[in-house]
Amino acid sequence: MSLERTRIVLVGTTHPGNIGAAARAMRTMGLRDLCLVDPQCDPDDPEAVARAAGAGEVLEQVQRYPDLASALAGCRLAFGLSARIRAERQPRLALRPAAESAAAEGGEGGLAWVFGRERTGLTNAELDHCHYLVQIPTDADYSSLNVAQSVQLVAWELRMAAEVGGALPQPETEEPPAAVDTLERFFVHLEEMAGRVGYLDRHNPALTMRRLRNIFRRARLTEDEVRMLRGLLSHVLNPRRWRK
Amino acid sequence: MSLERTRIVLVGTTHPGNIGAAARAMRTMGLRDLCLVDPQCDPDDPEAVARAAGAGEVLEQVQRYPDLASALAGCRLAFGLSARIRAERQPRLALRPAAESAAAEGGEGGLAWVFGRERTGLTNAELDHCHYLVQIPTDADYSSLNVAQSVQLVAWELRMAAEVGGALPQPETEEPPAAVDTLERFFVHLEEMAGRVGYLDRHNPALTMRRLRNIFRRARLTEDEVRMLRGLLSHVLNPRRWRK
Repeated sequence: MSLERTRIVLVGTTHPGNIGAAARAMRTMGLRDLCLVDPQCDPDDPEAVARAAGAGEVLEQVQRYPDLASALAGCRLAFGLSARIRAERQPRLALRPAAESAAAEGGEGGLAWVFGRERTGLTNAELDHCHYLVQIPTDADYSSLNVAQSVQLVAWELRMAAEVGGALPQPETEEPPAAVDTLERFFVHLEEMAGRVGYLDRHNPALTMRRLRNIFRRARLTEDEVRMLRGLLSHVLNPRRWRK
Repeated sequence: MSLERTRIVLVGTTHPGNIGAAARAMRTMGLRDLCLVDPQCDPDDPEAVARAAGAGEVLEQVQRYPDLASALAGCRLAFGLSARIRAERQPRLALRPAAESAAAEGGEGGLAWVFGRERTGLTNAELDHCHYLVQIPTDADYSSLNVAQSVQLVAWELRMAAEVGGALPQPETEEPPAAVDTLERFFVHLEEMAGRVGYLDRHNPALTMRRLRNIFRRARLTEDEVRMLRGLLSHVLNPRRWRK
């Protein structure tokens, strides 16, 4: 894991001060890659610049995206911060073990940490894009962490895990997980197949697709495996290739 | 160590927003005892109240002292935050080991953590009141942590040291993975489908099936998910159910 190449994604942030404070929090811990998805304020706002203090370069290099999927394109693993407990079976980790497993990841870049809106967090559809849901353990009676404070804690734990935890030796043959956009194209293909065979018509299509996505995201498919599964889908969709 | 009875002391704070944010940071981690020494602003300022969000009770109960000595009266150990390296031979600790040694302290109360002014930190005379100097490891090029962000990190590390990890509450709905024989029946079904659509004929069938098994085993499917996937396979294998 490279701290410099770890991406912090803020979704729908409404207060410019939070963007500035997040930039400063990142910079103190050696992170630099800040992305904004659908920001509801201007990162050039004087309050953002003031709260960023000396970390203005992080703000200047900020990238904006219209939606989470495009902010995650090219990323291999997304960790979504969520205080809620969801019914869907997506792996949930507390912050420290999550940071430790991120630090143990091979490869230089491709890890993203996703933070939701000040009041409402991430939507279910956005959480579906994340491989892991990360919760920051807090006081049971008052769990309201500010988004910039959450970024500070995540950046700190990543730095500590990178320095203290040290990367676990990865088996040489272990392939990294497929890129997020590779996976997205697979999901589109899968949805086409599930629709074509009449399965989606008989079930709640959105829920079904969310559950299927969860399954394959949990499996942490490699590029090769995605190719294999798409080959299988192509055969299903092309009855001329079926066994006679 | 009791989190509730751990004292946070802010010395000479100039921005009310920082006091509010510190209160919020403390409250999320279960700390409540906030003291201000010679504050250069009003903790009742609307910005302090706004940044405290729901942690107003910490602000309301804040205590003020004219100097550090009086704020520390009754405390047994004081940890002073300092980014500087001083010539004096005072024990210096990085944040995590400092929090761990605080958590290992017997007794309920009597521990204080002291934070200096936004621009200039603690004076040498103030540092002399502290038993330990604590440094938060940061990026070498940019070490400028905001005071409220420092409070957030200290409160987090104290909570983590007190709880040792802090397990997440598990969702009640979390289902156990499907039984091995459920999975085996699914693999038979999957192999039948992959054969039927002509995929296995064009590839090494044993290797393909091993790779597919690996994918779904890694996903740790639940019984429900196996049912869903088998429903999808049944649709594939029954063209009468396909969408017209």
